[in-house]
Amino acid sequence: MNAFSDGVIAILITILVLELRPPAGHQLSDILDEKGKLLAYLLSFVMVGIYWNNHHHLMQVVHTIDGRTLWANMHLLFWLSLTPLTTDWLGEAGVETGPVGAYSIVLLGCAIAYTLLTISLLALHESGSQLAQAIGRDRKGKLSLLIYVLALAFSFVLPWVALALIVAVAVIWFIPDRRVERALLS
Amino acid sequence: MNAFSDGVIAILITILVLELRPPAGHQLSDILDEKGKLLAYLLSFVMVGIYWNNHHHLMQVVHTIDGRTLWANMHLLFWLSLTPLTTDWLGEAGVETGPVGAYSIVLLGCAIAYTLLTISLLALHESGSQLAQAIGRDRKGKLSLLIYVLALAFSFVLPWVALALIVAVAVIWFIPDRRVERALLS
Amino acid sequence: MNAFSDGVIAILITILVLELRPPAGHQLSDILDEKGKLLAYLLSFVMVGIYWNNHHHLMQVVHTIDGRTLWANMHLLFWLSLTPLTTDWLGEAGVETGPVGAYSIVLLGCAIAYTLLTISLLALHESGSQLAQAIGRDRKGKLSLLIYVLALAFSFVLPWVALALIVAVAVIWFIPDRRVERALLS
Amino acid sequence: MNAFSDGVIAILITILVLELRPPAGHQLSDILDEKGKLLAYLLSFVMVGIYWNNHHHLMQVVHTIDGRTLWANMHLLFWLSLTPLTTDWLGEAGVETGPVGAYSIVLLGCAIAYTLLTISLLALHESGSQLAQAIGRDRKGKLSLLIYVLALAFSFVLPWVALALIVAVAVIWFIPDRRVERALLS
Repeated sequence: MNAFSDGVIAILITILVLELRPPAGHQLSDILDEKGKLLAYLLSFVMVGIYWNNHHHLMQVVHTIDGRTLWANMHLLFWLSLTPLTTDWLGEAGVETGPVGAYSIVLLGCAIAYTLLTISLLALHESGSQLAQAIGRDRKGKLSLLIYVLALAFSFVLPWVALALIVAVAVIWFIPDRRVERALLS
Repeated sequence: MNAFSDGVIAILITILVLELRPPAGHQLSDILDEKGKLLAYLLSFVMVGIYWNNHHHLMQVVHTIDGRTLWANMHLLFWLSLTPLTTDWLGEAGVETGPVGAYSIVLLGCAIAYTLLTISLLALHESGSQLAQAIGRDRKGKLSLLIYVLALAFSFVLPWVALALIVAVAVIWFIPDRRVERALLS
Repeated sequence: MNAFSDGVIAILITILVLELRPPAGHQLSDILDEKGKLLAYLLSFVMVGIYWNNHHHLMQVVHTIDGRTLWANMHLLFWLSLTPLTTDWLGEAGVETGPVGAYSIVLLGCAIAYTLLTISLLALHESGSQLAQAIGRDRKGKLSLLIYVLALAFSFVLPWVALALIVAVAVIWFIPDRRVERALLS
Repeated sequence: MNAFSDGVIAILITILVLELRPPAGHQLSDILDEKGKLLAYLLSFVMVGIYWNNHHHLMQVVHTIDGRTLWANMHLLFWLSLTPLTTDWLGEAGVETGPVGAYSIVLLGCAIAYTLLTISLLALHESGSQLAQAIGRDRKGKLSLLIYVLALAFSFVLPWVALALIVAVAVIWFIPDRRVERALLS
């Protein structure tokens, strides 16, 4: 499951770059015509990178899986696979209600899917297991869910605020999940 | 063989998303213009996910392969690799004879290729092996073949019924192959 | 090296499918408009599949590699990576001098690169090694080289004969390399 | 980390080929219309191949990683992922200030990211470790950084000289990192 997920995420992260097209001009400054797309690409690269990082850490404390876990994992990959679409819209249309709202929905989908995956994994592991300790009370995960809902709401009135909230979640998660590292060390 | 197949399926599942283009507008509701493509994407994601799931389960009880098995596997990957093409047609043209018929043919090809793969694997394993027990009488596989033939026939007269039949097969297979899980546990 | 090559080949084989576009019409027979592209795709899928198969078999008897082998392998991947380009040309322009000649050159490049890879591997293994036995006198490899040169020559006068020669090589190699299987068994 | 990086690099190297389109004509000489794109593809294939090779060698002497290393690796993958964009620009616009300057910047980004990765790895390994010996004083790495800065400067006045400098770095690195091989042998 880990290798397959790694494969899908590796492909997604590189598919994102397919949206970037070279500018028409011959001067170095012409690349600034693609500024919006480059920034949207950077944001999505970091978001997918965070999911890869945390997913990878999580799998290291997983000892058993079942059919339900496999589909919970597929469900997460499904939402992640929509990232290139929303990145593309954000890069093309700019910070408007549509693309920012869609971007929030996809990230909310990813966050819910990740939470469901941890729940289905917890059901297979004992309460004192490394996995249970690593996930703990999952405050960071719950906070992210809340912020994405807020971002979706703000996208209708102040898309720039919504985008700032999304970037804030990226900053929160940028450091790989210490909970797992702590559980692995103890 | 397993790693290579996982790789091909992981790439296929992400190539499917390349067909999705952001809408022209700036409102969140503009995404509904892409409704048909999004639903076609969702269906194909689930179908390919089912194949990955079952293929992955099957490989866990395989102990030996030969040249014939390798090509039987390649044959399955060939039919799976046509999924993005038929998904794209379905998403663009809608529920019409052409795309639904082509979609049925490709799924029928996948189902036949999967059956041939299990036959070539059974020839290499003893009758009491985990693999033989896991495959059993393969009622679900035979039923799927029959339904795909029906879907192909219906696509010429009632494409919506054909599509409903295809969705029905997806529902049947959604739960990963219990036969294999049972054989692994016993 | 094996995993990386498997990855590249898996991606190539799926990138091939990106050239296939759904037809404009709504009838099942409209798919025949894409007949040329579908046949070109099928041929290239088989050719790349053969390389994957033989490469995979070869790696199983390799015990040591060095920097030169890594680049010999990259060189093979380079020629294989040009397959989507020539497949696309063949599918679009049909059986004409340009696409068939380019297709022959790329296959000739692949065959030369594969031969160079086996030579650099033989230099690292003893003369009585499994690898040396598996490669043997490499009659099939030398014959393929000769036929590709012939195909290139024929592409200028009789492109259909050139294409038939290419298909003939595919048939010769379709069965995975028995030499390796024999060496592994003995 | 190694498998994921291998995956991303394998995908990047094949995504590069997507930029190549078949020529409009039917003659073999028509492929020369794509000469610029083919040469840009060849250069980028070699550059990405060099990174894969050195990254792969480096990982063989790595014994421990942490969160910071994971992000240092992601940072390298980010710069590598921009290669298809600059390759495309170079292939389309030719040897002009814009594409050559952008190409230099991306290579400079890759080189800095690779240096940061080695620094974060050195911080986790003892001074007498295989890794520390393998990296040594990293003269080749520092020289490359300097040449890329020069190439960026030259791209504004003499783009052809800048391109020659980039090719020179490729030649320097073409042979896989002997330092690592030496450290592994001793």
